[in-house]
Amino acid sequence: MIVVAERIPVPRSVEDDYSQEQARARREFAEGMTGASLTNVGSYSFDPATVAGNIESFIGVAQVPIGLAGPLTIDGEHAKGDFYVPLATTEGTLVASYNRGMRVLSESGGVKVTILRESMQRAPVFLFDDARGARDFGLWLEENFLLAKQAAESTTSVGRLIEIQQFPAGPNMYTRFNFTTGDAAGQNMTGKATFVACEAIKSAYPGGLRYLLSGSMDTDKKHSNVNSLLTRGRRVVAEATLKRDVLAERLGVQPEQMAAARPIHLLGSIMSGGAYQGAHAANGLAALFIATGQDAANVAESHAGYSYAHPTEEGDYYWSTTLPALIVGTYGGGTGLATQRECLELLGCYGQGGANKFAEICAATVLAGDVSLAAAVLAGDWVSSHDRLGRNRP
Amino acid sequence: MIVVAERIPVPRSVEDDYSQEQARARREFAEGMTGASLTNVGSYSFDPATVAGNIESFIGVAQVPIGLAGPLTIDGEHAKGDFYVPLATTEGTLVASYNRGMRVLSESGGVKVTILRESMQRAPVFLFDDARGARDFGLWLEENFLLAKQAAESTTSVGRLIEIQQFPAGPNMYTRFNFTTGDAAGQNMTGKATFVACEAIKSAYPGGLRYLLSGSMDTDKKHSNVNSLLTRGRRVVAEATLKRDVLAERLGVQPEQMAAARPIHLLGSIMSGGAYQGAHAANGLAALFIATGQDAANVAESHAGYSYAHPTEEGDYYWSTTLPALIVGTYGGGTGLATQRECLELLGCYGQGGANKFAEICAATVLAGDVSLAAAVLAGDWVSSHDRLGRNRP
Amino acid sequence: MIVVAERIPVPRSVEDDYSQEQARARREFAEGMTGASLTNVGSYSFDPATVAGNIESFIGVAQVPIGLAGPLTIDGEHAKGDFYVPLATTEGTLVASYNRGMRVLSESGGVKVTILRESMQRAPVFLFDDARGARDFGLWLEENFLLAKQAAESTTSVGRLIEIQQFPAGPNMYTRFNFTTGDAAGQNMTGKATFVACEAIKSAYPGGLRYLLSGSMDTDKKHSNVNSLLTRGRRVVAEATLKRDVLAERLGVQPEQMAAARPIHLLGSIMSGGAYQGAHAANGLAALFIATGQDAANVAESHAGYSYAHPTEEGDYYWSTTLPALIVGTYGGGTGLATQRECLELLGCYGQGGANKFAEICAATVLAGDVSLAAAVLAGDWVSSHDRLGRNRP
Amino acid sequence: MIVVAERIPVPRSVEDDYSQEQARARREFAEGMTGASLTNVGSYSFDPATVAGNIESFIGVAQVPIGLAGPLTIDGEHAKGDFYVPLATTEGTLVASYNRGMRVLSESGGVKVTILRESMQRAPVFLFDDARGARDFGLWLEENFLLAKQAAESTTSVGRLIEIQQFPAGPNMYTRFNFTTGDAAGQNMTGKATFVACEAIKSAYPGGLRYLLSGSMDTDKKHSNVNSLLTRGRRVVAEATLKRDVLAERLGVQPEQMAAARPIHLLGSIMSGGAYQGAHAANGLAALFIATGQDAANVAESHAGYSYAHPTEEGDYYWSTTLPALIVGTYGGGTGLATQRECLELLGCYGQGGANKFAEICAATVLAGDVSLAAAVLAGDWVSSHDRLGRNRP
Repeated sequence: MIVVAERIPVPRSVEDDYSQEQARARREFAEGMTGASLTNVGSYSFDPATVAGNIESFIGVAQVPIGLAGPLTIDGEHAKGDFYVPLATTEGTLVASYNRGMRVLSESGGVKVTILRESMQRAPVFLFDDARGARDFGLWLEENFLLAKQAAESTTSVGRLIEIQQFPAGPNMYTRFNFTTGDAAGQNMTGKATFVACEAIKSAYPGGLRYLLSGSMDTDKKHSNVNSLLTRGRRVVAEATLKRDVLAERLGVQPEQMAAARPIHLLGSIMSGGAYQGAHAANGLAALFIATGQDAANVAESHAGYSYAHPTEEGDYYWSTTLPALIVGTYGGGTGLATQRECLELLGCYGQGGANKFAEICAATVLAGDVSLAAAVLAGDWVSSHDRLGRNRP
Repeated sequence: MIVVAERIPVPRSVEDDYSQEQARARREFAEGMTGASLTNVGSYSFDPATVAGNIESFIGVAQVPIGLAGPLTIDGEHAKGDFYVPLATTEGTLVASYNRGMRVLSESGGVKVTILRESMQRAPVFLFDDARGARDFGLWLEENFLLAKQAAESTTSVGRLIEIQQFPAGPNMYTRFNFTTGDAAGQNMTGKATFVACEAIKSAYPGGLRYLLSGSMDTDKKHSNVNSLLTRGRRVVAEATLKRDVLAERLGVQPEQMAAARPIHLLGSIMSGGAYQGAHAANGLAALFIATGQDAANVAESHAGYSYAHPTEEGDYYWSTTLPALIVGTYGGGTGLATQRECLELLGCYGQGGANKFAEICAATVLAGDVSLAAAVLAGDWVSSHDRLGRNRP
Repeated sequence: MIVVAERIPVPRSVEDDYSQEQARARREFAEGMTGASLTNVGSYSFDPATVAGNIESFIGVAQVPIGLAGPLTIDGEHAKGDFYVPLATTEGTLVASYNRGMRVLSESGGVKVTILRESMQRAPVFLFDDARGARDFGLWLEENFLLAKQAAESTTSVGRLIEIQQFPAGPNMYTRFNFTTGDAAGQNMTGKATFVACEAIKSAYPGGLRYLLSGSMDTDKKHSNVNSLLTRGRRVVAEATLKRDVLAERLGVQPEQMAAARPIHLLGSIMSGGAYQGAHAANGLAALFIATGQDAANVAESHAGYSYAHPTEEGDYYWSTTLPALIVGTYGGGTGLATQRECLELLGCYGQGGANKFAEICAATVLAGDVSLAAAVLAGDWVSSHDRLGRNRP
Repeated sequence: MIVVAERIPVPRSVEDDYSQEQARARREFAEGMTGASLTNVGSYSFDPATVAGNIESFIGVAQVPIGLAGPLTIDGEHAKGDFYVPLATTEGTLVASYNRGMRVLSESGGVKVTILRESMQRAPVFLFDDARGARDFGLWLEENFLLAKQAAESTTSVGRLIEIQQFPAGPNMYTRFNFTTGDAAGQNMTGKATFVACEAIKSAYPGGLRYLLSGSMDTDKKHSNVNSLLTRGRRVVAEATLKRDVLAERLGVQPEQMAAARPIHLLGSIMSGGAYQGAHAANGLAALFIATGQDAANVAESHAGYSYAHPTEEGDYYWSTTLPALIVGTYGGGTGLATQRECLELLGCYGQGGANKFAEICAATVLAGDVSLAAAVLAGDWVSSHDRLGRNRP
C-alpha cells in the first residue's frame, strides 16, 4: 500500500466501461498503486458486459470454491424430490457437515417445507406536528388504501401491495408497506412502488404532508425484531422427524440426549438475546446465497429464526426451524450471472417461478446444517466427558 | 431437477479428491442428474489442491464480480493513508455508492479508526444439581483462572485467554471464554483451546463436573445482544467530521437536514429492534468479506453496531459507527486462496500483522457506505417532497 | 420467624371470611406464629366485606403515603384543564420532582395528550401436526373472523374483538386476540371472551383442533417487544414544547444542553436494551397506580415506551413520550375500594367513561417526571463539572 | 374536576408541613378544588411526621388490602423454614393462587433459594473527542480503580465499589459502577458514591475530562437486557422439584403435560421478546413490594427473569426461576413506615441483616405463583378441550 500525496480516482471509461480492456486497465492501475498482483482476480469466464447493472468499476472476480452437498430429500409444495445443493464457502468442514445433516434428514424421510407468508417492504414515515395529526392520517390511510395500492402497482407488473402496517410514535406515523414480489427479492421494486404510492398519498391528503421514504422500520440489510415477528421476504418452516436409529447410526446421539440438552441451549440463547436459537443458519445461507447470486448482505436478515423441537411419543425427535425473514430471488439481481445461473439451474430454480422452490431448498438446507452441528456438539461433549449427562438432568 | 428413486451420493475419491479430474467428475455427475450445465462453475484459475481445507466435494467456483472503490483516506493506528477497496457484490450501485461516500469522507479529512477491544470466544456451560453448585464453581473458577489459561494456551502459539465471563442462571453456569487470536478470526483456535481448558477444569474441580462445550452464549454465526454489548471479534469505531461544503457539493445535503432526520430514524430503529442504527453495514462488509476470503456467514454478527452523530459547533457534522462484533482475519481460513489473497494484498493486509489494519479498513468502508446512503435517502426525499422538512421539525 | 414442625394453614371461615373478626383472627394467628405486631396493618377505614373479590385471606392494609402534585395543565381529548395528581409512594423527592415537572409543563402551555390505539389481548396458540396445518388454519380463521367475534362478544357487554393477529412458527399458530374493553383494564374480560371464541373455533374447524389459551404472546404482566410494537392496553402520546425561559428559570438548563445530551443518552439506552428511553416512567405510574387501584403489577408492561425530542426552530424544546402498553381502568378491579375511589374521583375519572381521561393523565404525569429528572441530571452535572459540555460536543 | 382559571399551587407549610393539620388543609384544598371527598385517604394510623423523607405534600394514604399466603417452606441460605407471606394487591384470586403454589412447593419439599450475585449501580458516561480518548481513559481507569473505590467508599459506611464495567461506543466511555449496598436497595447510596468517585477521577485524570453522571446504562426503573445479563440488585435463583403426586393432587396436572407445553410457551415467549419466560413474577413482587415498603417502581426491573424447567428421571418436574435484577432493601426507603415495617417483621426481615433473607423470600414467592398459574392454564385447557394434548405432540 502506497500512501499517495494526491487522491487519484479509479479510472473509468464513459464509452466502454464494461470491457475487457477497461477491467484490465483498472487492474493495472490498482497493481501500480499498490504493488499487488491481480492475476487471478482477472481470470473469469464471462463477458464483462454481462455484469453491467451488477457492479461498478469492475476489475474481475472473487473465485469462491463451491462444494456439492446432497442429495437432500425435500417434501415441499414447490420443491419436491432429491436435490444436490451447491455451497460456496471457504470454511473447511462446512460442506461435509451439511452433507451429513442432509443424509440424516433424507434417511428419516425427508424435510417438509412450508412457506407461511410473503412480505417485502419499504417503510416510509409520515411527519406531523403532533400525535393527533399522525393518528388522523392513519385513519385516512386505512380508508384510502386502494389509492396507495393502485399507485404502487402502477410501477410494476409483478409487485402487489398487500397491506400497510402502522406504528405510530410521537408525532410520527411509521409504516411498513408490505408487498409480494414474485420471483424477485424485490427491494428495488418495492422502493420505487412505495415512492410512487407516497407521492400519490401526499397529493391526495387534505392539506398535504411530509414524509421520509424510509423511517428505518424496514431494517433493510439489518436483523430486527420486527422482521422476525412480522416477516420480511418469506416466512418459511422446515420440519422433520429424525428417526432414532438414524440419529444413533449417523450422528451418534439419542433423542433423549437432544431433549436433555435443549433447555440448556435455549436458556443460553435467551440470555444472550440471540437472533436465532438454532445452530448456524448463517453458514448454509451464506454459502447458498453466494453460489446462486443472492445478495449476501441479506444474510444479516435471513439468518434469524426460531428453532422448535421435542421428542415424539414414538421415541423419535421432531425438529423444525422457522426462518421469518428469508430474502431470496431467482430473477434479477445476481441470479443471471454466469456461475450463479448455473447453480440455480442445478437446483431447477432459475428464473420465473423459481423463488418459492428456492426458498424451500434454503430452509431445508438450514435444517440439515443445524441437525448436524447440534449433534456434533452433543456427541463431542458426550465423548469428551466420558460421562452421561447424568442423573436428574433433563 | 430429476426426482431420483434411489439416493445417489456425490462421487468422491479417497485418493485424489482435490484434482481437476475429480472436480470434473462431480460436475458431470451433477449435470447428468439435473440437466444443468456447469461450464462456468468449472472455470477457475487455481489448482484444486489449494482448496483442500476450505471446501469438500469441490466442483468449481462462484465467480463474484469485484468493483474497485476509493481511494479512501484512513487515519487508523494500523491503516494509514489512501486505500483502494475491492468489493465483491452483485448488487448494482453498491460500489458507486460506497465510492461516493469514500470521496466525501476523504475530502472531509479522512476517517479516524480505532480498535477498542478484541475478544473472540467459546462459551461452555457447566452443569450442576442446583444454583449453589453453579455459584460455588464460579468462585472456584475465578481463583483458578490461571489453570484454565495455561491449559487453553498450551494449544496455540497465538491465542491468549484473557478472561472468563460468568452468567449463572438456574443450576447452570454459562460462561464466555474470551481470547485474543492475533491475525486469525479465531473461531477454531478458540474452540480447541476452550475444550482443553474445560477438560483441565473438569479434572481439577473437586468432585468433577459436567459441561457442554457450547451453552449458546458465544452466538457463533448469529447476531446477539451479548455480542454487541460485550464484543465478539474486534470492537472498532470509525469516525469523521463531514465538512459542510463537502456534504453540500457531493451529497446535496446540509448538516441541519441530517440532524433533523436523525431522531426520526433513531426512533424507527429503536421501535423495530434493529441490530444496527446505521444505514447498511452488511452491504459493505459482505462485499469486502467475499473479496478477501473472510467467512461471509460472519456478516450475521459483524453487521451489528451503534451509530452516533451530531452537528458540531463549527457547523459540520460528526458521524461515527461502532462495530462491536467485527470478525476478520488475514491468516488462515479463506484468506490464502488465489483471488482472495490478491485482494488482501491490494489492501496491504495479507498474512501476519494484517488483521488490525484490515479491521480498520472494514469499519472505514462501513462508514463510507452509511454516509452515502443516508444522504441519498435524505436528498431524495428532499427533492421528492419539493418541500423543506419544515418549521418546528427537528 | 419461627420454624414450625407442621405446616399450619392460615385460618379461614367458610361462612364469614370477610369480617372484622376473621381478619383479626388471622392477624392474631400471624402474630402468634411470628411474634410480629400487626396493629397498624389492622387499621383501615372500610368494611372488609367491600374487598371480597379483591383479596383472599384478608388481614388488613398497607398504608402507602399519598402526596399531591400539581396542578398539571392537560390538553387532552378527554382530560382538559388543570389536575391535582395523587401519587402514592415511599420514595422521598418523587412527589416534589414530579410537581416541578408539572409546573414546567404547565407554564410552557400544558401537555397535549393523544390516545392512538386501544388493544387488550389474550393470545391463544393453536397446535397442528405441521406448519401447513397451521398456515391453513390461519387462512380459515381470517375467513371466519366473524364467528370468533360473535362468540367472544357474547360474553361481554363492553368488550369488542377487533382483530386476530397471527404469528405462525413451527407447527403452531400463535395469535393475539385484540379487544377494546371500555373502562375496564380488561384482562379478565378478554380471558373469558377469548376462551369462548376458541371453543367456538374449535367446534367449527373441520376436523377439530387443539389449543392452549395462552401461547405466551400476550405477555401479561411482563414487558415485551411485541407489546411495545403492537400495543397492549392503550397507546398514548404526551407531548409538549418546553419554553426556553421556563427551562432556564425552573430547571436551570438550556434547550441546547438538552439537545447536546440527548444522543449520548440514546446511545446508552440503545446499548443497554432498555424498555424505555425516557427517564423513569415507572416511578410516576407506580405511584398513580397504587393511589387509584390499578394493578401495580402492570407497571411491568406500562413503564415501557419511546421518548422523542428535538430543539425547535423557535429555540424551545419539543419533548414527547409514547407509552405503547399503558394498562388502566376506572371500573372494576381495585378502582372501587375506599381510598382508591376517592383518588380517582379527585381526578374526575371514577367509573364508566373515565378510562381514556385517566390514561391521558397518566401519560402527562410521566412526561412531567421525565422532564424534571432529565433536567436535574443535566443541571447537576453541569454544576458538578464546572464546565460547559464543550467544544465540538453535540 | 374543575378547570381553574389560575394555577393554584397545593398549599404547603414551611414550618410544619408534616402535621395532621397541614395534611388536612391539603385534603380540604383538594376537595374544594375538585368536589371529591378524601375521607378514607385521610384515615391512617401513624404520625405524619414519620413520613418526612418518604413523601412530599402528604395528604393521607392509599389503603391497599393485604392477604396472607402460606406457609411457604424455604430452604435458603438466609431464609430457613416456613413463612407466611403478606401480599398487598387488589387483584382477586392472586393471593389464593400464590397460596396454592406455596402449598405445592412446600409439599414437594420446599424451595431452595440461592443468591448468586449482588450489584447495584450508577452508570456515568465519560465524554471524549474521539474513540481513542475513550479507549485510553478506559485503560487508565483500570489502573486507577483503587482511586475510584476509595473516593466512592468515603461517602458510605455500607456500600462497596466492586468493579467498573466499561462499554465504549463512539467517542464515549459508558460505564457501570457496581456496588454492594448491604441491606439498603442502594440507589441513592450509589448515586452519591459514584458522583464523588467521578469527581475524583476527573481531578486525577491528566488533562481533565467531562462526564454525565448517568449515561443511561444503569436503566434505573426500567427493564433492560443489560440488567438481566449482568445483574442489578440481586441475582437470585429459586428452584424446586415438584413431586408427581403433589402436582396431580393439588394442580391436576402431570409432569408430562408440563414438559409437553413448555417448548410451546418458550417459543411464544421468544417470539414476543418477553422480559420473563415464567408466568407472572410481577404479580407476586408488586404485592410483596407494596406490603413491605419496597419501591414499587422497581417492579419494572425486578419482574424480569429466566425460567428453566425439565422433567426429572424420577418422574417429577424440576422448575427454577432466576431473577437477575431483584431490587430490595430492609433498611431505609419505605421499610420503616408503620404497616410496612410490620409486614417485614412478619417475615423476620426488618432492618439490618434482612435483605438477603427477604430477597430469598421474594424469589420463592415468585416461583410459587408461576407454578400455580402455569398449571391452571394447562389444566384449564385440558378440561376445556376435553382432549389430550395428543399424539406426537410434545
